[in-house]
Amino acid sequence: MSQKAHAAMTQFSIKDGELAIANKTVSELVQIAGQTPCYIYDRNVIAHNIEQLREHFPRVSLHYAIKANPYQPLVSFVANLVDGLDVASGKELRTALATSISADDISFAGPGKSSTELLMAIASGVTINVESKTELERIITLAQANNTSANVALRLNPDFELKSSGMKMGGGSQQFGIDIEQLDPIFELLKADGVSFKGLHIFTGSQNLNPQSLISAHDNIFALVQRLQQQYSFVLEHLNIGGGFGIPYFAGEQVLDLEPIAENLNSLFDQYKELVQDCEVILELGRYIVGNSGIYVSQITDKKVSRGQTYLITNGGLHHHLAASGNFGQVIRKNYPVDVANKMISNDKEIVNVVGPLCTPLDILASKMELPVADIGDYIVVYQSGAYGFTASPRDFLSHAHPVELML
Amino acid sequence: MSQKAHAAMTQFSIKDGELAIANKTVSELVQIAGQTPCYIYDRNVIAHNIEQLREHFPRVSLHYAIKANPYQPLVSFVANLVDGLDVASGKELRTALATSISADDISFAGPGKSSTELLMAIASGVTINVESKTELERIITLAQANNTSANVALRLNPDFELKSSGMKMGGGSQQFGIDIEQLDPIFELLKADGVSFKGLHIFTGSQNLNPQSLISAHDNIFALVQRLQQQYSFVLEHLNIGGGFGIPYFAGEQVLDLEPIAENLNSLFDQYKELVQDCEVILELGRYIVGNSGIYVSQITDKKVSRGQTYLITNGGLHHHLAASGNFGQVIRKNYPVDVANKMISNDKEIVNVVGPLCTPLDILASKMELPVADIGDYIVVYQSGAYGFTASPRDFLSHAHPVELML
Repeated sequence: MSQKAHAAMTQFSIKDGELAIANKTVSELVQIAGQTPCYIYDRNVIAHNIEQLREHFPRVSLHYAIKANPYQPLVSFVANLVDGLDVASGKELRTALATSISADDISFAGPGKSSTELLMAIASGVTINVESKTELERIITLAQANNTSANVALRLNPDFELKSSGMKMGGGSQQFGIDIEQLDPIFELLKADGVSFKGLHIFTGSQNLNPQSLISAHDNIFALVQRLQQQYSFVLEHLNIGGGFGIPYFAGEQVLDLEPIAENLNSLFDQYKELVQDCEVILELGRYIVGNSGIYVSQITDKKVSRGQTYLITNGGLHHHLAASGNFGQVIRKNYPVDVANKMISNDKEIVNVVGPLCTPLDILASKMELPVADIGDYIVVYQSGAYGFTASPRDFLSHAHPVELML
Repeated sequence: MSQKAHAAMTQFSIKDGELAIANKTVSELVQIAGQTPCYIYDRNVIAHNIEQLREHFPRVSLHYAIKANPYQPLVSFVANLVDGLDVASGKELRTALATSISADDISFAGPGKSSTELLMAIASGVTINVESKTELERIITLAQANNTSANVALRLNPDFELKSSGMKMGGGSQQFGIDIEQLDPIFELLKADGVSFKGLHIFTGSQNLNPQSLISAHDNIFALVQRLQQQYSFVLEHLNIGGGFGIPYFAGEQVLDLEPIAENLNSLFDQYKELVQDCEVILELGRYIVGNSGIYVSQITDKKVSRGQTYLITNGGLHHHLAASGNFGQVIRKNYPVDVANKMISNDKEIVNVVGPLCTPLDILASKMELPVADIGDYIVVYQSGAYGFTASPRDFLSHAHPVELML
């Protein structure tokens, strides 16, 4: 398993037998970070990802979903390369407002936004992706009380789902968005003072590696929007068709082929010419933009053999990288791509378990994986760690030191 | 499911129809905490748990494992009622040293302790539970270099396991402890200057609700220790037999019956009279002491019906209470005990999903649970939240405000 996965990690180079980012070996990277464990993000990989998206989707606006990685230097870097940002909390909104992106191109999504958060969004002029009738009523009340107007888009829960998704977030019964059967009173409310209708947001799932599923979702989205436009005669300034583009984590998974998705979107732009001519179509991506740009580096503190199995014990683990430990929405634990970062060219291999320092058997970074023979002091790298790593982990669990973050 | 689970939450009272702690209703508790979401711990429940343990296990010393809940006021309170503390990191060691417990009664366990942490332990005089030969060598080197002596106990990986455990941490191949077949070189090393052998630590699993499994583990531990004593002729100052006492979380689980465990330990004390006469036998418990003392309170921010299912959306969720969301080592998601804390006496019920504010379908606090009919502003309580809650959760995920903690 490991060898195949590593072979796919072609976004990074090897220097002096070590994994390298920005022409620095992992040993140098750790010196620059000042410690292990650390998360290191490669800005060139991010830029390359966005370039690829631009090439394939020239007619579409690109938004970055900050929740994937809210590290401020990274958000500021990405902001200079994309057309907008999506935020999921008041703090993420502050992060977004601090970048080069204008409030017009920031949207705020998420069920259960607080009144404080709604007021932050109204006052700053960003677009609120409305998740329920109650929320819309609250927005109107707040805007009217402040003699202003709120920019809103409707997050729809469609009557179809995104097949083969890591996580389904549209179709069927959902906590997200407004069921399309419940739109009559919503469009009535949108006639009120204090609210300005800007567009629609249809997000159906995430971490999808199947182009046909994404194509089918896009087909369904455009057909649905046209149907709704005929029904409610609205003018759309923008249409956010979500993201859902996956990246490969596990053995056998392949990089998503953008080509057929791009071709299909092109056809849809032609087919729905009137719909899109004055409407900005937005792809909102998080993981796909930053996921493969990041590595998590820990250091081996002990090595032991217990009843036939070898354990590499590192100073990092579940508390820093919950997803890699297999405890973040995974039903069956599978290994993330892992390697010994300072022994990238090695023919001497062995089967090992890589574990962390916590007093729990859940603290696993790699289970029965073939890796270069490693010793105390060597660096263990977990690839595909640029999204849902640092902030999606219980960093205070057992009160160990937190990892640091670095972007080069 | 929910009604049975609530019926078991007899550690708290009801006042004016609301859940109450320290004679304050949940509405008052939230005012005192200053916000929702919050974790609230009931010191009387903790004291009662310890009292029960004292009654059942008068010949055993009680240690508290800080990792279960390191909230400093709680640790200080528990420290006044137990005989010792167990720590799992340098920061937990500082927490322990700040209490009334003396260094003699503090032990430091965990694979992959750093040299800095080992030196903290040596300099402060606490007992280090040694997890490998390499670690013992490192301890001796550090102690000798500092012209001092380290207190050590050996954490053993026995040749049996704790059956029916939530998590197995002994027996078979393990990252924890030293296989008992590998002890010859360890006892050789223990003759060196710079190290003082204090005892043994045998921890075989956690979250066990089956008295017979615990009884069988205790039987095995005493037999093993006697066998090893005959083989290596050591003098034991203490024997830490671990913990593993579980608490009920899910439908159908019962409170652990301490009686048969206590009876069996009494018999073992008689049977192994010579072994225990000058040896302190220690039960190390974390979750069992504090788990049922804590509640997690969030507030409903929205309520919606989507295609036949009702959703209560709260301002708390997975990011504050990972275990309750079902994403912490659970293979199949089951509901924690949940209720509407300000509507404890209500005959008007409905089946709902309780979800958090995050943009992920993993953010669930209760799935299809029968609860009192609730509205925006009502309080949702998650019981059994005193252990592995606040610190075991990815609190920065989506950058929402952190919960606060309060002990009354």
